Amino acid sequence: MTLKELGECGLIERLRRRLGPPPARVLVGIGDDAAAVAGSGATLLLTTDTLLEGVHFRTTTATSRQIGAKAMAANLSDIAAMGGEPRWVLVALAVPAGLEVADVDELYAGMEEMAARHGAALIGGDTSASPDRIVLALTVVGEVEGPPLTRRGARPGDAILVTGELGAAAAGLALLEGDGAGLAPQERAPLEQAHRAPTPRVREGRLIRQSGVATAMIDLSDGLAGDLGHIATESGVGARVRLGALPVGAATRRAAAALGQDPWRLAVTGGEDYELLFTAPAAEADGLAARVARETGTPVSRIGEIRPAADGVAFVGDDGRAVPVGAGFDHFAARGETS
Amino acid sequence: MTLKELGECGLIERLRRRLGPPPARVLVGIGDDAAAVAGSGATLLLTTDTLLEGVHFRTTTATSRQIGAKAMAANLSDIAAMGGEPRWVLVALAVPAGLEVADVDELYAGMEEMAARHGAALIGGDTSASPDRIVLALTVVGEVEGPPLTRRGARPGDAILVTGELGAAAAGLALLEGDGAGLAPQERAPLEQAHRAPTPRVREGRLIRQSGVATAMIDLSDGLAGDLGHIATESGVGARVRLGALPVGAATRRAAAALGQDPWRLAVTGGEDYELLFTAPAAEADGLAARVARETGTPVSRIGEIRPAADGVAFVGDDGRAVPVGAGFDHFAARGETS
Repeated sequence: MTLKELGECGLIERLRRRLGPPPARVLVGIGDDAAAVAGSGATLLLTTDTLLEGVHFRTTTATSRQIGAKAMAANLSDIAAMGGEPRWVLVALAVPAGLEVADVDELYAGMEEMAARHGAALIGGDTSASPDRIVLALTVVGEVEGPPLTRRGARPGDAILVTGELGAAAAGLALLEGDGAGLAPQERAPLEQAHRAPTPRVREGRLIRQSGVATAMIDLSDGLAGDLGHIATESGVGARVRLGALPVGAATRRAAAALGQDPWRLAVTGGEDYELLFTAPAAEADGLAARVARETGTPVSRIGEIRPAADGVAFVGDDGRAVPVGAGFDHFAARGETS
Repeated sequence: MTLKELGECGLIERLRRRLGPPPARVLVGIGDDAAAVAGSGATLLLTTDTLLEGVHFRTTTATSRQIGAKAMAANLSDIAAMGGEPRWVLVALAVPAGLEVADVDELYAGMEEMAARHGAALIGGDTSASPDRIVLALTVVGEVEGPPLTRRGARPGDAILVTGELGAAAAGLALLEGDGAGLAPQERAPLEQAHRAPTPRVREGRLIRQSGVATAMIDLSDGLAGDLGHIATESGVGARVRLGALPVGAATRRAAAALGQDPWRLAVTGGEDYELLFTAPAAEADGLAARVARETGTPVSRIGEIRPAADGVAFVGDDGRAVPVGAGFDHFAARGETS
């Protein structure tokens, strides 16, 4: 059996089974945004990601600084999704020997600036040569006081909430790949920016966890359908999302029209929004949403509710009927670029 | 300027300069075997490495299990070189979708076994697809009670010591690449094993640090010349090593003869021995060496002494004259396989 046949989720489940229960002091092992380990004081959060040139980024559609910033944002987002604070970053960089040092400088500048903006610092790593493509492996260590907020605690009846807007990054990518679809530069710019320079929701994640009422959280890297599926699987629940409630911005709607796509499809199956998807008891949801919006300036939308597992994960239209959506992103099933 | 022109050490120095002094709580930043961060209890050690198929390993000369074990050993060795205990491992794996799941299982089995043997556990990571080569990025988090043993504390007059034997891994690699050089399989096997399955000196490193007398330590990944150079640079000292004192085993000597090479050259410039190179005041060196050998069964050899910086780093023959040796391994200058 090949990895393509097994699929990404199949592989992760297989690894989790073979590794067995996590050892002492490990609060969260494989299968969440970050691993969590009990320290003698704060809980440590550990996350790592590898980005390959030509797969996760292209030097033709983004500058080195943008590539560095986005790679860092994606990793910081994993710490944000546990409600933690990113602290220290290791960067293992493999690059062709013929690369200009100025490009390496820019790559690091992008990583550093993004890390510093969220309270983290580059403190170590490794450099080596790659015969062809740039390979960027980041590890972020975060801290959280007390237990992190995982994917596991959602309960039937909980409200489903999401920060910011959905679909903008996917629209931006489609525009970049499709020569702009005839949109004016000023209409494309914010969407292309959403794709190139996502903002990890670190402050928002911290507030959501500190509220004490949120029951589960994940960051939206693979797309709402896939990532909500992770919460459903890990929590042992189902979910019902109202497509009409999804926060899809006007620019994304215009781009969807120009691209001939449904805007909600960009929001549901498009990846890399790096917004936070979380759950909270229905009675507390609006208060929590209002508090996060007030303290961070980031809007929070209530988009659906957690249901019993038997109901599955459904996306419903205005008529209340379920609309079939594609699965989440599977790295091994995809061809070509994923971001 | 390209990376090839700047060189690996130049790049690391450049990164260190641009990042400036490490932030609060960071005891050791860029430029040692691992970064070190003050926790509320133990000090955290953080190290990461990326290995690329075709550069750092080949699936034609090693099994998936061996590749996994060696990748893990190299990372555990960085924790050992600080005197720490490896605890938690993150694995970011990018693999072609057509790879057999059985190979991925073996890769993880090799990593797990090696980690478990030294008290560490895989607790998280990331999986994604690579269009061509396997990319394996490991991060190991270790702990140490009190300050780690760095590359910085060597003083003129200190003795230079090394665990185990040198040159065996380089001899094994040369035999694997050169069709065995006419040696019998039983003569080649231990050397090829040294190349394929190095042992990180975790217990030895812990004892050396706990002794309280060792002044600096590094693991031998790039070769004695290069790695001793790192201690010299970081400590602001010179060094004098007696080639005749280098622990080169009989099998390595036979292989060197068959390969038409000087055995000491394999020991000085060959990489990947993953032995520990450390320094201690002359009066304490023999006692420390004896204690480590007694408690771990690993021999320790006294191979030279630390000198003032003005003396440089010299390797001297039996006649007391300095012998010119090549520089340490530079990833950006090398062509083809490095391990």
